[in-house]
Amino acid sequence: MEAVAPLLPCGVATHGPPPGTDAYAAAGVDYALLDPGKRRAQEGAAGTTVQLARRGFAEVPGTRGESAYVVDAGDHYLATLAEGLGTKSLVADAVREITRRSHYEAVARDTVATILNDLATVGAVPLVVSAYWAAGTSEWFSDGGRMADLVRGWASACAEAGATWGGGETQAIEGIVAPGAATLAGAAMGIIRPKTRLLLGERVVPQDAILIAPASGIHANGLTLARRLAAALPQGYDTPVPGDPWGRGYGEVLLDPAPLYGPLIEALLDAGVALHYAVHVTGHGWRKLMRAGGALTYMIDCLPDVPPVLDFLRTQTGMSNAEAYGTFNMGAGFALYLPQGDVAQAQRVAGERGIGLLPAGRVEAGPRRVVLRPLDVTYDGASLQIR
Amino acid sequence: MEAVAPLLPCGVATHGPPPGTDAYAAAGVDYALLDPGKRRAQEGAAGTTVQLARRGFAEVPGTRGESAYVVDAGDHYLATLAEGLGTKSLVADAVREITRRSHYEAVARDTVATILNDLATVGAVPLVVSAYWAAGTSEWFSDGGRMADLVRGWASACAEAGATWGGGETQAIEGIVAPGAATLAGAAMGIIRPKTRLLLGERVVPQDAILIAPASGIHANGLTLARRLAAALPQGYDTPVPGDPWGRGYGEVLLDPAPLYGPLIEALLDAGVALHYAVHVTGHGWRKLMRAGGALTYMIDCLPDVPPVLDFLRTQTGMSNAEAYGTFNMGAGFALYLPQGDVAQAQRVAGERGIGLLPAGRVEAGPRRVVLRPLDVTYDGASLQIR
Repeated sequence: MEAVAPLLPCGVATHGPPPGTDAYAAAGVDYALLDPGKRRAQEGAAGTTVQLARRGFAEVPGTRGESAYVVDAGDHYLATLAEGLGTKSLVADAVREITRRSHYEAVARDTVATILNDLATVGAVPLVVSAYWAAGTSEWFSDGGRMADLVRGWASACAEAGATWGGGETQAIEGIVAPGAATLAGAAMGIIRPKTRLLLGERVVPQDAILIAPASGIHANGLTLARRLAAALPQGYDTPVPGDPWGRGYGEVLLDPAPLYGPLIEALLDAGVALHYAVHVTGHGWRKLMRAGGALTYMIDCLPDVPPVLDFLRTQTGMSNAEAYGTFNMGAGFALYLPQGDVAQAQRVAGERGIGLLPAGRVEAGPRRVVLRPLDVTYDGASLQIR
Repeated sequence: MEAVAPLLPCGVATHGPPPGTDAYAAAGVDYALLDPGKRRAQEGAAGTTVQLARRGFAEVPGTRGESAYVVDAGDHYLATLAEGLGTKSLVADAVREITRRSHYEAVARDTVATILNDLATVGAVPLVVSAYWAAGTSEWFSDGGRMADLVRGWASACAEAGATWGGGETQAIEGIVAPGAATLAGAAMGIIRPKTRLLLGERVVPQDAILIAPASGIHANGLTLARRLAAALPQGYDTPVPGDPWGRGYGEVLLDPAPLYGPLIEALLDAGVALHYAVHVTGHGWRKLMRAGGALTYMIDCLPDVPPVLDFLRTQTGMSNAEAYGTFNMGAGFALYLPQGDVAQAQRVAGERGIGLLPAGRVEAGPRRVVLRPLDVTYDGASLQIR
């Protein structure tokens, strides 16, 4: 992956207005509308915590609002979550017209990745993944080639992450899901053992280093906007993406699946790296770096290479850097928070797996915000209302 | 609930042609199309079992294809699953036009019930429920009244079942989910402790009694067909349902949520009832009674009262009994399989909870089939290709 033109070398502060209108809201996902409902659900959920004690379990303080819900099971923790792919499968459906391939192996890998990458943020290793696939028609499931791809991708991603695919549910829900489409989602259960491997936002402290694990592309976030762009391009999904080493069209490059970051987190913990926290950079883009909450400033001095497809998206839509980094991962798949003294070891362990961890910045005492110094962009705490 | 006209007293064998065309397939859910995809997924999933050993866990033999996936965790079992409501929320959306109430408290209860009733079939008590709600637009989540109902129903059902609502995901997935609609689904993790409480199909033996726990209505299965009927009725969802004690319209009666059967199963096991197996009667209706598989005949001599809404549906659509019982629960929410000697105690324990368990029949050695003697209807093994 090569460095991309409009981004500047690390440490050079430059342009970038503060976020104005939210380009992503204009493209159909408005977090100002979504987030209050999410918060209401979080409040309702918190009221049920008392039930765990009936079963001899306990909620882990601070777990509410993390990417996975963590329960104290005595000599270990259990973590659970549910997640969905979003609209990326619609890109595969459209690209199939061009390539004559279903691309559902990649779509399945992305769905499993979005589930298991969330699970990895709390330091859990996966035990079981459940699938939930709801199509608009029964016929959707009778496309044998696509189903074979979907099953192969799901199974291989589970195996690569060390998870067992336990089962799941396939439904035809006419009138809710569009006729040719499917909602692809799932759930996971994982274990944290020994308990010292638990990662929680409240463990982040000033002076922690922030390491960035690279993204492979758009992952599963921002696809609604990406699809709008395709509709506006004369060549649509067939438009070449500058910088793609294989000369592929926009649609195919969008479909590159996200990496599974869980094995990296597991390797770091196995090696004794004192990870404090990990963030899966998804909705809200780099604003997610302050997911941990608390009065902490996340000072970024160095940005990762931007995957060509994201630079293409930003350029073509005319987004400001503030909008782009507040929406897409822009090259950051995972953010890791750890003591400065453990950075070298973490980089060595990741390097052995072929992953370059970028020392991107550090945590400082100060108002809750993310500062992207190379871009002169700041996201204040109010721009991330949920965790 | 009163006995419904066309059904005859227990033990009287009568009419009923064998299943012909599948009325439910004509209404948009074709299991002949759905089931091969489901089986393909089950095969793909089975290939990942080896991963559990990496974590020090093991798959429980016979768990594949049960309603929940069960893992051996040493001194206990863990069970997980994902499930979705189907299209029942569309009924609530339509009935809101009549009643000016969202009915999403009932819809939420039904979603939790469909998840946790599946979990209960393996003898697990729930620990954590995760929500997955995917709407067609961000605006869907900003209907404060509906969201409040949804959250209240979800939380109260979790609490009633003794589960903690751990969290979940809310997504807007434009282009996949219809603009005014939402896919409502979720997942659960439960525990089976002591391990003797595990329920598995392979434990069913000849001479086991079959007890039926009553259904409250249509539950979450068969709604696509039920919605087609509403569209064909001159008064639509406002059509009175004969036998409904509150004189409500068809739409409102359809929305009666399913009971949570988990606490009943838990009470039976607590009381030492030697349950062998439990079946959540959902898709495929009474054909599900042979879910356990094996060369066993499920001989039914006595049928439960049919909820008025299901009798209305059968009458209005002109379904044969074979079609109706092969599609809807027709009054059977749960089927329990246990030694004859434990029947009286099971009925006593259920009675203390206000639940009448109907001794409906027994298991016999013989070809795999379900025989509804009062209706002269037989479903052979080939009519339930999946478990």
